[in-house]
Amino acid sequence: MLIVMKKNATDHQVREVVEAVEKRGYTAHAIPGGERVSIGILYNKGSVDAGHFLGFGGVKEVIPVTKPYKLVSREFRQENTQIRVGDAVFGNGTMPVIAGPCAVESLDQVLRIAESVKKAGAKLFRGGAFKPRTSPYSFQGLGLTGLEHLTRVREATGLPVVTEAMDVETFDMVEAHADVIQIGTRNMQNFSLLRRAGKAKKPIILKRGMSAMLQEWLMAAEYIMEEGNSEVILCERGVRTFVRHSRNTLDLSVVPAAKKESHLPIIVDPSHAAGIRDQVVPLAFASAALGVDGLMIEVHNHPEEALSDGAQSLYPDQFAHTMKKLTDIRSIIESS
Amino acid sequence: MLIVMKKNATDHQVREVVEAVEKRGYTAHAIPGGERVSIGILYNKGSVDAGHFLGFGGVKEVIPVTKPYKLVSREFRQENTQIRVGDAVFGNGTMPVIAGPCAVESLDQVLRIAESVKKAGAKLFRGGAFKPRTSPYSFQGLGLTGLEHLTRVREATGLPVVTEAMDVETFDMVEAHADVIQIGTRNMQNFSLLRRAGKAKKPIILKRGMSAMLQEWLMAAEYIMEEGNSEVILCERGVRTFVRHSRNTLDLSVVPAAKKESHLPIIVDPSHAAGIRDQVVPLAFASAALGVDGLMIEVHNHPEEALSDGAQSLYPDQFAHTMKKLTDIRSIIESS
Amino acid sequence: MLIVMKKNATDHQVREVVEAVEKRGYTAHAIPGGERVSIGILYNKGSVDAGHFLGFGGVKEVIPVTKPYKLVSREFRQENTQIRVGDAVFGNGTMPVIAGPCAVESLDQVLRIAESVKKAGAKLFRGGAFKPRTSPYSFQGLGLTGLEHLTRVREATGLPVVTEAMDVETFDMVEAHADVIQIGTRNMQNFSLLRRAGKAKKPIILKRGMSAMLQEWLMAAEYIMEEGNSEVILCERGVRTFVRHSRNTLDLSVVPAAKKESHLPIIVDPSHAAGIRDQVVPLAFASAALGVDGLMIEVHNHPEEALSDGAQSLYPDQFAHTMKKLTDIRSIIESS
Amino acid sequence: MLIVMKKNATDHQVREVVEAVEKRGYTAHAIPGGERVSIGILYNKGSVDAGHFLGFGGVKEVIPVTKPYKLVSREFRQENTQIRVGDAVFGNGTMPVIAGPCAVESLDQVLRIAESVKKAGAKLFRGGAFKPRTSPYSFQGLGLTGLEHLTRVREATGLPVVTEAMDVETFDMVEAHADVIQIGTRNMQNFSLLRRAGKAKKPIILKRGMSAMLQEWLMAAEYIMEEGNSEVILCERGVRTFVRHSRNTLDLSVVPAAKKESHLPIIVDPSHAAGIRDQVVPLAFASAALGVDGLMIEVHNHPEEALSDGAQSLYPDQFAHTMKKLTDIRSIIESS
Repeated sequence: MLIVMKKNATDHQVREVVEAVEKRGYTAHAIPGGERVSIGILYNKGSVDAGHFLGFGGVKEVIPVTKPYKLVSREFRQENTQIRVGDAVFGNGTMPVIAGPCAVESLDQVLRIAESVKKAGAKLFRGGAFKPRTSPYSFQGLGLTGLEHLTRVREATGLPVVTEAMDVETFDMVEAHADVIQIGTRNMQNFSLLRRAGKAKKPIILKRGMSAMLQEWLMAAEYIMEEGNSEVILCERGVRTFVRHSRNTLDLSVVPAAKKESHLPIIVDPSHAAGIRDQVVPLAFASAALGVDGLMIEVHNHPEEALSDGAQSLYPDQFAHTMKKLTDIRSIIESS
Repeated sequence: MLIVMKKNATDHQVREVVEAVEKRGYTAHAIPGGERVSIGILYNKGSVDAGHFLGFGGVKEVIPVTKPYKLVSREFRQENTQIRVGDAVFGNGTMPVIAGPCAVESLDQVLRIAESVKKAGAKLFRGGAFKPRTSPYSFQGLGLTGLEHLTRVREATGLPVVTEAMDVETFDMVEAHADVIQIGTRNMQNFSLLRRAGKAKKPIILKRGMSAMLQEWLMAAEYIMEEGNSEVILCERGVRTFVRHSRNTLDLSVVPAAKKESHLPIIVDPSHAAGIRDQVVPLAFASAALGVDGLMIEVHNHPEEALSDGAQSLYPDQFAHTMKKLTDIRSIIESS
Repeated sequence: MLIVMKKNATDHQVREVVEAVEKRGYTAHAIPGGERVSIGILYNKGSVDAGHFLGFGGVKEVIPVTKPYKLVSREFRQENTQIRVGDAVFGNGTMPVIAGPCAVESLDQVLRIAESVKKAGAKLFRGGAFKPRTSPYSFQGLGLTGLEHLTRVREATGLPVVTEAMDVETFDMVEAHADVIQIGTRNMQNFSLLRRAGKAKKPIILKRGMSAMLQEWLMAAEYIMEEGNSEVILCERGVRTFVRHSRNTLDLSVVPAAKKESHLPIIVDPSHAAGIRDQVVPLAFASAALGVDGLMIEVHNHPEEALSDGAQSLYPDQFAHTMKKLTDIRSIIESS
Repeated sequence: MLIVMKKNATDHQVREVVEAVEKRGYTAHAIPGGERVSIGILYNKGSVDAGHFLGFGGVKEVIPVTKPYKLVSREFRQENTQIRVGDAVFGNGTMPVIAGPCAVESLDQVLRIAESVKKAGAKLFRGGAFKPRTSPYSFQGLGLTGLEHLTRVREATGLPVVTEAMDVETFDMVEAHADVIQIGTRNMQNFSLLRRAGKAKKPIILKRGMSAMLQEWLMAAEYIMEEGNSEVILCERGVRTFVRHSRNTLDLSVVPAAKKESHLPIIVDPSHAAGIRDQVVPLAFASAALGVDGLMIEVHNHPEEALSDGAQSLYPDQFAHTMKKLTDIRSIIESS
């Protein structure tokens, strides 16, 4: 941490800050500048709360240097974390694709979609049984019945299943049925849920919050890892910006940035970012070329009749065609 | 809802959309325009999912008209909802001030601060016992002990207390001790928590999410009201933008906008928006002049030693001085 | 500037950075931290380009410390700059109000509006003769005729007039007729125009860009001051965010932040921020209570027939009523 | 346009709106809804100003339906516009790459870089002679000398050159030397400059503004086309968001969205979006896979000594390696 003093800060003010730093057990190091003094805080374990010193007299600015995360950081662990689920590995340079409908609507629906996405090359099946919905009047998911349908999908197709856990109360139930548990965008900083996910024996897909900084996202992953679960897959799904031509703005630059800071695998969900089918396919291609560790794509056999997110779901044929191109793009990227 | 067709949409495509609308039980009304056809959906109860029709052939755009909320809407209830807590009323044109530290740190601390804010004119006391923190390594609050300290504050000063409920597991405990229960920014769309809050017998302060649209915020309040609790106080606390000169951007225009759409009272928390003491006071004055239904301000007896958010907490003297001005500003506003 | 090295940066990499710093004529000061080395750049005049060192091997982050502006900064000049125009002074603790229509539409229109806003207490008249419009098909302003109408307004009412200069070509003409020249939001970083404004003999109102950082805005003012014109009035008019309940998000926290960094006066335009009349009045009250150095408010005698921005223009009566309250709020704020 | 009335709007208010619509020469069509009346405006040529009706009594919302642009729209011209420059064509399904340094620094520098990027497969050379800089103290470009160096590059390598025009005053000079003229981000709504560009006989690259909506960007292109220059190439270069891990957020979803709305070619500049070399290459791959009509990439022979934007410039070798992969990715995309 660097504490920058105002030009006209008095020696007394500098001393007060130095004392406050040392009172907290850190080492303070005054750095004379051309026109002002700065004070470095050294030998701190982990990060120091920047806000703490901001209110002192004579202080102009406080600049954090050390990042607050540990377990998730690339400095803590240099090699990529690899997470194996069924045939798929996230983090080893390949790009497993997770596909399926937004919500589990019926057994027949999920079985049909699962067959077709498996045939097209998807490695995991997705489908929501518990659906966090903006409106209390929207379809909230089939709950336990939905989870049971997913179990049938696994039995019938061999595909591992990914589904969302919305709260601590139903987490056990989800954990019993899922192969990978998803924490949704709106729950990225639901810290009680993150702690529970940290005790799970299954890998977690942690979706980025609607306006989460990279650092906040990594701190959310840190909550999970700190409880003992080191299998966390980050998932970029678009962030909220001023833009209105897509539902969210897919932030692909977060992928290389996250890989630089963290050893965790990172996948992309172009469906929720786009909100409309026409944009999903090009954004999937872009993600593949970028070198992501996986993709999550919504597919529905009758998008027009989907109970949620129909407009962004691909038709099965469209998905199959997309998968072929994705494989080709990927073969180029992997051969670097 | 208005479905706008492309210029070159065929009659067949128009018919398909009309049929899909009618299949869902609504009335479709084709509106010939200068250059294109639009289709209005009429007599729908509540809102129709815009996404549903977006994927149809020949459709250019789908424009929602009816808002999806009911119970929270001004059209549902014309008069302002008034919520009484102790001496204070939120929503009757007055501006009760809630003050106290970010976190309950010790009994002595909260008693001292409570005495001073009461003397300065605060009507409620705030203090967090369960603290949602970005980092798992930050101070997480005193938990039950903190709640018990708050009970002692109420006994000692007569001030009703406001504290946050972070999850369903500890909600009962919070409800037993608090006079008003706060749902935090990061939990605005924690739907399980919202449903639990809807069953509480205490008023709820619902903080706006970091990047929540007004409509999403009102839908979150709808979740609470739909479960039976109609005492919801909205709280604006700044939103995330590109700006870096303040922690968040206080969005004061949401106050008149929310009052137009909804009958619920709305208060402002300038402390979390600003993140730095120097900005808190002017933003509090601004909020008062705007006509808000209340304020929530952080005050700490020793901000330099606060375990969280010290930089944004006012000194007791500063708070007392601020309260005098707030009262003066308010007297002008109320006399309109 | 602080250059933070990676944990595993080699001594060689540190030396390379130090040499590059010294090659540019600065002093490098290596600061050993707990786990990593940082390099401070000292005795630099003005700011150093952060990007320059970002690409060096072993560099993790580059953190600017010195701000790049000089003439506009509070450290350069401690007292508030005061700018006198007619009876009004911007920057002396008072709050002169500039009022008038968005665009000059006819002589009769401006004369009528000017009479009524003068009577209500406005100190300056505003009206656009050259209008920057998003669409080439929208009304572009009356040009020279509009400027002449403004001259007539000054003669008839004694009010100084504020009008926008859109380009260097027409700047002379605007300068000849205006008392204060406005640089619009979309031109905040039109550097050629800023330089021309810097040569003008009239005060400049510099509107904040749609998504301008405080620092960029101050740098734009620096362009003007650097050419010799030190009469620059900053004007906050709302920034672009994800929000949809108002046209822009009025960022009031920029006011105390700007006053901390700079000695220049800062005013607020609530009309363009709100985009709708209902929000203009409360935002004007809020701005007054915040302690701004002035306000700019749109008023139109027949808003329904305005050629631009009718929906955000106040009716003359509404403006007069608003002015009374503004005066009352201000009397409280000024007596601190 | 659709004017949505409040639930309790009176018949009188509805009539007033209808009359106002008809007074402007449009046809009003009242649409009874389940609970409220809406009024459609029909047979309007071009768009109607939404703001105009927003302030009427009983009006809840005004929803624009018709887009305000004409010449740029896909509905006006169905086929892609193709723009030929030297060997390159923008808009025919290929992806010409424009490469070169941010700024022209010396003849030797541009000749060396041009040779190397040509060898690697770039089709056009870029380099700024007039540089819009946030700070008046930063390097502002070599001006005319820079333009002359670019002419030498063209002569020596045969590569057409792209350079920026910053203002109307120096436009003639730029037009005389450049093959393609760039309008920069900060000038996207410099309407005088756009009109001048519309009179140029050279193609224009129009960079997207820092926080421009797609519609505003297309309207800026409309300004150029309306003056007679139909050779406009859109260039996405990242937008400003809350994100801090990259300089700007590259908004790739704007590419399919723009292609849906407009027939103009659209290219991507990953260098300015990223701001740091590590992110440029993956974002270039992503853009190629997305199907863009071209790329603009910064390359410098000595990035460490670049006078601007060194950190985001690729090394010549890195660029050559990148070009190979880009070609491979592209061959897959083009074979759809």
